[in-house]
Amino acid sequence: MVNKPAPDATRRSEKSRRAIYDAALSLVGEVGYPKTTVEGIAARAGVGKQTIYRWWSSKADVLLEAFLDLGEQAAKAAGHEPYTLPDTGDLAADLKAVLRATVDELVDPRFEVPSRALAAEGVVNEQLGREFVAKLLEPQLQLYVDRLRAAQDTGAVRGDVDPRIALELFVSPLAQRWLQRTGPISYDYTDTLVEYALHGIAPR
Amino acid sequence: MVNKPAPDATRRSEKSRRAIYDAALSLVGEVGYPKTTVEGIAARAGVGKQTIYRWWSSKADVLLEAFLDLGEQAAKAAGHEPYTLPDTGDLAADLKAVLRATVDELVDPRFEVPSRALAAEGVVNEQLGREFVAKLLEPQLQLYVDRLRAAQDTGAVRGDVDPRIALELFVSPLAQRWLQRTGPISYDYTDTLVEYALHGIAPR
Repeated sequence: MVNKPAPDATRRSEKSRRAIYDAALSLVGEVGYPKTTVEGIAARAGVGKQTIYRWWSSKADVLLEAFLDLGEQAAKAAGHEPYTLPDTGDLAADLKAVLRATVDELVDPRFEVPSRALAAEGVVNEQLGREFVAKLLEPQLQLYVDRLRAAQDTGAVRGDVDPRIALELFVSPLAQRWLQRTGPISYDYTDTLVEYALHGIAPR
Repeated sequence: MVNKPAPDATRRSEKSRRAIYDAALSLVGEVGYPKTTVEGIAARAGVGKQTIYRWWSSKADVLLEAFLDLGEQAAKAAGHEPYTLPDTGDLAADLKAVLRATVDELVDPRFEVPSRALAAEGVVNEQLGREFVAKLLEPQLQLYVDRLRAAQDTGAVRGDVDPRIALELFVSPLAQRWLQRTGPISYDYTDTLVEYALHGIAPR
């Protein structure tokens, strides 16, 4: 069992940890993943390299936690707990609300710049891409799976639908417009995706 | 008016052109976009740098044409003309056929490796990303727009649907699974996307 640190030490290390996250995210956004180093993160955060290696084993580990923290901060700023999706009983309204919050996050430079650097690396670096998808992206997608399963229980979604595929009808178009800049991103756009995904484009 | 070259010269320059395309695609797949140079492409193709500059103004131009050529070759190999989508009158069957052919292309290393290198660069290099989307990706997406408009004329798609958004319901999920490796790619998967996109996931 690890001894509980004194309050002052906890506060100090929490401050260092946040400085290291900020340094890692800003650095990867500026120079890209391949040129980001633990040394560079340490220098920018104003800590010794050993401070980083005490807590993390690699730059990928630091960045993974920095992005997890960024996601939690964004969720709190948007006024909801991280790792949950609203369930008001109105599936369309709930999905639209979550996607609108995602639009806000995607166009926020604090999120966008480092996230693009990481996403670009993940496209060509299979190991990194798979690790970040497994630890960052897939857990978020599973929240949609949970919400769609609840909707199947209430009859708002057909029971024969695979929720893991269904969520992609509204999540992936937004992701592609953001990643590849294939079109503008707006609330109207994501609202439309939800409508089409729920009801299809063929005559009802 | 330009004089028509003698047949031998045409054949020679067609051969050089193809060698340059192959060199550009293999090089970008191996070293990534930033480290690909006109000099490197020329060396690998066995031509002088000036031969490349006679036809193209930059490595981006060479790559753009190489990818256009690759797409045309793939279309011919799949047994259809490039720049058209089938219209048998059965929208679901036509979309499934095109997406199955896209699956084949996405998992073909000759396409996948250079395309990943270019897509990764486009995520962080806005100018390049926008140029390649405008010249390579958007023209392909417009073929879906045309097919969905034809389906609106026959009543297979509702008249109030925006075809440019609707196509993303089946194209973007496949694109994201390929780009970010968020899930396996198969014919069953793309068939399911078409079904959900046409009929939605809510009870009919």
